[in-house]
Amino acid sequence: MTLPPLNPADADFARTLRARLPDAAFRPLGPAYLEEPRGLFRGQGGLVVAPGTAEEVAEVVRAAAAARVGVVPYGGGTGLVGGQVMPDGPAPVILSLERMTRIRAVYPAENVLIAEAGAILADVQAAAEAADRLFPLTLASEGSCRIGGNLATNAGGVNVLRYGNARELCLGLEAVLPDGSLWHGLRRLRKDNTGYDLRALMIGAEGTLGVITAASLRLFPRPAVTGTALMVVPSPGAALDLLALAGDRLGPVISAFELISGQAMRFLAETGCIARAPFAALPDWAVLIDLGLARGGDVDAALTGLFEAAQAAGLSSDGVIAQSEAQRAALWAMREEIPEANRRVGSISSHDISLPLSAIPGFLQAATAAIAAKGPFRINCFGHLGDGNLHFNVFPPQGRTRADFPGARTEVAQAVHDLVAQFDGSFSAEHGVGRLKVHALETYADPARLAAMRAIKAALDPDGIMNPGAVLARRTGRREQGQTTPT
Amino acid sequence: MTLPPLNPADADFARTLRARLPDAAFRPLGPAYLEEPRGLFRGQGGLVVAPGTAEEVAEVVRAAAAARVGVVPYGGGTGLVGGQVMPDGPAPVILSLERMTRIRAVYPAENVLIAEAGAILADVQAAAEAADRLFPLTLASEGSCRIGGNLATNAGGVNVLRYGNARELCLGLEAVLPDGSLWHGLRRLRKDNTGYDLRALMIGAEGTLGVITAASLRLFPRPAVTGTALMVVPSPGAALDLLALAGDRLGPVISAFELISGQAMRFLAETGCIARAPFAALPDWAVLIDLGLARGGDVDAALTGLFEAAQAAGLSSDGVIAQSEAQRAALWAMREEIPEANRRVGSISSHDISLPLSAIPGFLQAATAAIAAKGPFRINCFGHLGDGNLHFNVFPPQGRTRADFPGARTEVAQAVHDLVAQFDGSFSAEHGVGRLKVHALETYADPARLAAMRAIKAALDPDGIMNPGAVLARRTGRREQGQTTPT
Repeated sequence: MTLPPLNPADADFARTLRARLPDAAFRPLGPAYLEEPRGLFRGQGGLVVAPGTAEEVAEVVRAAAAARVGVVPYGGGTGLVGGQVMPDGPAPVILSLERMTRIRAVYPAENVLIAEAGAILADVQAAAEAADRLFPLTLASEGSCRIGGNLATNAGGVNVLRYGNARELCLGLEAVLPDGSLWHGLRRLRKDNTGYDLRALMIGAEGTLGVITAASLRLFPRPAVTGTALMVVPSPGAALDLLALAGDRLGPVISAFELISGQAMRFLAETGCIARAPFAALPDWAVLIDLGLARGGDVDAALTGLFEAAQAAGLSSDGVIAQSEAQRAALWAMREEIPEANRRVGSISSHDISLPLSAIPGFLQAATAAIAAKGPFRINCFGHLGDGNLHFNVFPPQGRTRADFPGARTEVAQAVHDLVAQFDGSFSAEHGVGRLKVHALETYADPARLAAMRAIKAALDPDGIMNPGAVLARRTGRREQGQTTPT
Repeated sequence: MTLPPLNPADADFARTLRARLPDAAFRPLGPAYLEEPRGLFRGQGGLVVAPGTAEEVAEVVRAAAAARVGVVPYGGGTGLVGGQVMPDGPAPVILSLERMTRIRAVYPAENVLIAEAGAILADVQAAAEAADRLFPLTLASEGSCRIGGNLATNAGGVNVLRYGNARELCLGLEAVLPDGSLWHGLRRLRKDNTGYDLRALMIGAEGTLGVITAASLRLFPRPAVTGTALMVVPSPGAALDLLALAGDRLGPVISAFELISGQAMRFLAETGCIARAPFAALPDWAVLIDLGLARGGDVDAALTGLFEAAQAAGLSSDGVIAQSEAQRAALWAMREEIPEANRRVGSISSHDISLPLSAIPGFLQAATAAIAAKGPFRINCFGHLGDGNLHFNVFPPQGRTRADFPGARTEVAQAVHDLVAQFDGSFSAEHGVGRLKVHALETYADPARLAAMRAIKAALDPDGIMNPGAVLARRTGRREQGQTTPT
């Protein structure tokens, strides 16, 4: 199916919007709206509008639908797959949620919070904490990403093991659909079986099926006692056995279970990202385990008991249990600085993949061999092992840079993604499809599912105005103004 | 939008199917396929087909799509809203999953199990237990309902508080879409952000968007220590305060938190459903609390501590902590026999509703007053308080039957549903829409969401062959053979 071409958000269109929205809703086209963190995509222009209310968002989308102008929803701009930047095609409306930042309500007794889409994730966390509750979504960009973007991309992070992805943390949405209708769906219900789950469909659709304007979010009791340990493991397989042991011994109080490679620790040391490694001799592999217990829980006993059991089972030879908040923060800083260390080293290709847990050892063996066959590369594999989510990143050998290996990126990425598919994994665990992985989706997605996705997109957004080119390629009958090659 | 009329599954169509499927796939049209538990709907006929494989299911749907014949998926037949029975319109194919009962695989280390849609829920639970794992979906009909139906209706039950609804317990699906394409989506991943969540959309669609043929399901470590207490509370509001207290003290180990009314206990005694009430003087309200702790947990101390704290806060005056498995079973039997006691008394109208937790006391006050204004009725309100899910059922006064109150059913149901909507609740918490609540959905659903649902249905099932008349009314240009009034 081909679509009619879109029109640019030109001066006429701007006049139409100015007649409907207050002056405060218009923003100059600063560079932030055209860039994304890794510099892989660059926007060519657009009209930036920052509505103050859901009704104003609906006005923008209605006008865009009538004029057949593309709409690119813009949250915190932290996405890693180019979902927030449209690099070609007619200039879109860049619909920023930056003025819709209110926490509309907190219901501590219900464990529910209602936030507008533009609320910064850290502000949502803080509002929950002020009510003695936990909003568990935690990720590197939490100081600048916005909750609407977190939901549009079904963000993951370090606490998914215990609390689920963004989708599981959301009870209801308020959203503007592609025809400009406003869906009032801010439910605060744990059970609601009244038809199709439009909430789950919008979450993870990356702005291609509408614009999220507010969400009702699940809160949790704050764990009263928290503790952290770093345990050395001989292999990723042993790390998985330790995960199973921890699950059996400790049940649902494991908040995070992160894999850290020796390579990550070497990068951290080499780049100066951390002052001091926790072990004199760097191990090949370690896991960072976080527990959150209810009042009266003995977290030290829990972690000590787990470590002793792991030792007895040959799963861990050494370990550190944080004895203070400062030590705990230091252990977590090591984990959290890995992306910065990677950035300083400069990867050839980075992969946000997930695998069935039991497939991980086999995948790592095959992928390590496949990369070795391609060149003298270094692999830093780390991430949310408890969720089967690995960041499998490939780097040049020491003393050289990625510029020394032109063309390697595509080749490495394809080898990794082919193996991921072979081991029943996913080429995008938590970052989404955006514009970067449109081709990967077309390559690896089940054909029946992909056809259903296209049918849903065409049904809800017949002219394809919502985030054109993200997730699904936008195929037009003729070339649009400014369009380069389709992704 | 109107649809072309459907054709009956007639002798010609039967011949077409017989040419494509083995003889074993054909079943006589026994009465079970035309009935549902409450006798509210009765099927008029149909061709019963029980495929043995997903490919055979796809053959049936492809043939039905080509001939424009309705397809009614049939699981265990235990649904309470008529989703499994088509009372009017041209005779459909009744597509029973009864021969697809295999547990295809269990991955204990991954906490994943793959079951075919026809597997009985209790068999899925047993397969998990045989691998020392827990599949937590638990509900009254678990001995006869099938997992495909549980997923199609997004079943709830008593453990939702801790483990989530059926949707949250499913990682992936294999399903036949309305065009007969087979979606191979049996993912075993905790994170997979590669486009629209077709899994979540199919779950709860009640067979109107396709037929689930298999599912990959989440398992959990089995709690090593379990315990149960029944605590008397002065009011539903106090029960909610006790829920919050329990959450703060015990965190994520609360598996169930059920409200039981004094009326329920009186019904149990009157109808002989239980031999002996747990309290000499029946209280107005009580809550049944179930805990599941990891190894080494002291469940008695946890429950005693909770009870003492509740007493100190004026939230509970009396209580029973089960001291043996037999006592635990007796407490749960009381809860589980309530539906049977209700059946024996004979309700005027039953309501499976959910509310925001903090709205429950206000709703109960308003609803009790509204019912009192309609007649001398008795109310039995009980259910999954931890999820805000109440079964609010209305009965005739003692010594009379519902036959004495003709016309009361519709009036009572509307009053309850209007109040539920006013308090931001849902008219169907866990049973679904089926055919019983199509009108309620049209009345209470957000218009933008309802329009999106219709667009999705039309996109995936343009001729409306899948479970015609369930969830969304099927509006045809002219009357179909055998059609009575639309719901």
